[in-house]
Amino acid sequence: MFAKTPKPPYFAVIFTSKRTGSYPADYEHTAEAMVAGAKSQPGFLGHENTRSEDGVGIMVSYWLDLDSIRNWKANEDHRTAQAKGRSIWYEDYRVRIARVEREYSLADSEFKNSR
Amino acid sequence: MFAKTPKPPYFAVIFTSKRTGSYPADYEHTAEAMVAGAKSQPGFLGHENTRSEDGVGIMVSYWLDLDSIRNWKANEDHRTAQAKGRSIWYEDYRVRIARVEREYSLADSEFKNSR
Repeated sequence: MFAKTPKPPYFAVIFTSKRTGSYPADYEHTAEAMVAGAKSQPGFLGHENTRSEDGVGIMVSYWLDLDSIRNWKANEDHRTAQAKGRSIWYEDYRVRIARVEREYSLADSEFKNSR
Repeated sequence: MFAKTPKPPYFAVIFTSKRTGSYPADYEHTAEAMVAGAKSQPGFLGHENTRSEDGVGIMVSYWLDLDSIRNWKANEDHRTAQAKGRSIWYEDYRVRIARVEREYSLADSEFKNSR
């Protein structure tokens, strides 16, 4: 469930969304296809995804560089899904593109705090 | 539910975690206190948070600069909560610190796509 990302720097797309609840089966099917599509893109490093019962979700995908993010955004199947997202599946969303500078895990924190 | 962040650049702390399920009431109480504590810190810009039923959560907090993030990490109450997080509440987690370069919403996407 944790993305196995390389040593920073790399890039993150933080996608925070509120679902409408419309056409859930179609949404699930498309979401799975989009994850498979992203995985097949050059520069894709992994993703982490969660959604609570109130329909609020955060998906973070990780990428080697900004070109990889642009290429996936312009992918034809992905553009079709984006349009359905805007018109059917999402009440609203935010997309934030960020450069990851540092990463650590629980194990790293324990190590640092024991020194 | 969406953080009202300013025009980029600003910073994001992406905290992805898997809960153990231990001491949930204590966890909820501390989590609320930590959100209140972060809000009172200089440089805090907002946060977005979600957790699915399987215990996987993503919390993204947004900050003006890296110093604000460092100050909050070093806060005494927060350090106590971090230690309990490592020993009791979390099976594992990742912390990623990133510089947000770009942000857009559903409304922005519709505008751009209609041109």
